[in-house]
Amino acid sequence: MVASMKFNIERISNPSLEQRIQRRLDSLTKPQGSLGRLESLALQIGLIQSTDMPRVESKAMVVFCADHGIVAEGVSPFPAEVTRQMMANFQAGGAAITVLCRHYGIDPVIVDMGVGRPTRNFAREAAMTRAEAEAAIARGMSFADSADLLGAGEMGIGNTTSAAALLSAIAGLDPSETAGRGTGLDDAGVSRKIDAIRRALALHRPDPADPIGVLAALGGYEIAAIAGLILGAAERRRAVVVDGFISCSAALIAKAIAPASLDYVVFSHRSAERGHRAMLDHLAARPLFDLDLRLGEGSGAALGINLIETSVKLYREMATFDSAGVSNL
Amino acid sequence: MVASMKFNIERISNPSLEQRIQRRLDSLTKPQGSLGRLESLALQIGLIQSTDMPRVESKAMVVFCADHGIVAEGVSPFPAEVTRQMMANFQAGGAAITVLCRHYGIDPVIVDMGVGRPTRNFAREAAMTRAEAEAAIARGMSFADSADLLGAGEMGIGNTTSAAALLSAIAGLDPSETAGRGTGLDDAGVSRKIDAIRRALALHRPDPADPIGVLAALGGYEIAAIAGLILGAAERRRAVVVDGFISCSAALIAKAIAPASLDYVVFSHRSAERGHRAMLDHLAARPLFDLDLRLGEGSGAALGINLIETSVKLYREMATFDSAGVSNL
Repeated sequence: MVASMKFNIERISNPSLEQRIQRRLDSLTKPQGSLGRLESLALQIGLIQSTDMPRVESKAMVVFCADHGIVAEGVSPFPAEVTRQMMANFQAGGAAITVLCRHYGIDPVIVDMGVGRPTRNFAREAAMTRAEAEAAIARGMSFADSADLLGAGEMGIGNTTSAAALLSAIAGLDPSETAGRGTGLDDAGVSRKIDAIRRALALHRPDPADPIGVLAALGGYEIAAIAGLILGAAERRRAVVVDGFISCSAALIAKAIAPASLDYVVFSHRSAERGHRAMLDHLAARPLFDLDLRLGEGSGAALGINLIETSVKLYREMATFDSAGVSNL
Repeated sequence: MVASMKFNIERISNPSLEQRIQRRLDSLTKPQGSLGRLESLALQIGLIQSTDMPRVESKAMVVFCADHGIVAEGVSPFPAEVTRQMMANFQAGGAAITVLCRHYGIDPVIVDMGVGRPTRNFAREAAMTRAEAEAAIARGMSFADSADLLGAGEMGIGNTTSAAALLSAIAGLDPSETAGRGTGLDDAGVSRKIDAIRRALALHRPDPADPIGVLAALGGYEIAAIAGLILGAAERRRAVVVDGFISCSAALIAKAIAPASLDYVVFSHRSAERGHRAMLDHLAARPLFDLDLRLGEGSGAALGINLIETSVKLYREMATFDSAGVSNL
């Protein structure tokens, strides 16, 4: 099915390494397991990096920006030019994601995937050709060398409609269950969004067994690029932190292309966007945070990168019961 | 009832200031409300600091350490000397809380509240005299000048038993609902813990209307000190981030002494310790994180301090729609 794209992705499972990491976790000066998800994060990063001494020496947030033909259906309260304006705001350092990157020492990498060159209106025709979708995946893959620890961010007016359509297509859910308010749609806007997705599903009849076909029909260039970033990170055994509704829709595609790629993904937060819960359920993902975020850009992923760095520092820098002379059980 | 201790604590409510802060939040380059709890945190800090330009210039984690006579009842799997050993580990920088403080730029302030000089065994007699409890509260208050933004941490083998007893006394819950595994008790240990609390409640008949009396009967010096830190922070209009089961038990006492003090408290996380959910319900608190932590020391509070600093930086540093030239609704 994935004729022209091949991926070399291994599962991270490694029982003997897992045992070594767990032994170190249990030797640190704390009751066993008492750091909860900070312990499981350190374990996941160790397994991803194939070492019992994982490290985070560089962090990058890759923010893919793209425009969407579907905005012609009236599915966003913001005009399409906001994509370009916000990309400039990312570059100038005034956006939420750039403030977060500064605070957490993350390198922001802002990528123009098609700003001002929108996908086609997928309520009327396929958003992309298969070749365009594959090229966008390949471009996303090329950013997997940006750092040890990667974050996936995005900007694209209209892209919650794409993400909801992808969720409906992959998980077989009615658009009324997947389409939400996005950046602040009113009820009439949500109805237009549901209707546009419903027409698109009837038109394209997307086949979940052909994830690149689904992506080409309903996706966006930034979503394709995030799917590529995930696949590329998995090929290079790097962790990639996904954000909310949009980047998780890319994870749906990456999973359908190569299920093992999800071993390398950390789900940062549960978005307030309507369909995100169902999307996370479909991905069997339990995110780290639930902070009512619904901004995108990679904002939740930046928090996730920081929590991973925290978990790795605890793992590397805490004293052991022996070294600190603390009585153990 | 609080005869010898007086507190001068104002509510933080201020409708005109709240309106100014909200106006700025809504002018920042993001859909309104899309930063969720990061927006409500910035608002809370602004109201606490009485300014529409809140700041976090200094951060301190005050870790109060104390021993507990109740350990004679076999309520902890770790021996009592671990309190002193862990205090040394805090000072040497090898404990989880000290690694977290380093990573987040928080000043650790390690306070000996009675290590090696335990409270009395409260299953048999009052843990402290009223004068001792008041002195410990006063000592905790004196640390409220440590920084703009305060965290409350603790170490004390046996202190989950005190915290569970305080919750039972204040909220009227049976010890079987409040006593959990602490640092890793087995079922027999939990039964001993429940039994010890049950005997203590029968012995002292604590009156929830006399919170200092409840604290003296069942508390610990570090718990009294955290209650004092909260009350002192509230007097000085500073935010204080509480951690898990132990420091929230101190918040129960602070609330009973001066309900307005809770306006200054940020609840960082939901602990995996059994009684914490009921405790948070009693406090009407919705914590920021749910990461299965159950370490104490202030570990969750350190994450909370970092999230508050993040929220304030976003509030202060993000561009507005006007300044960035981004089209608004």
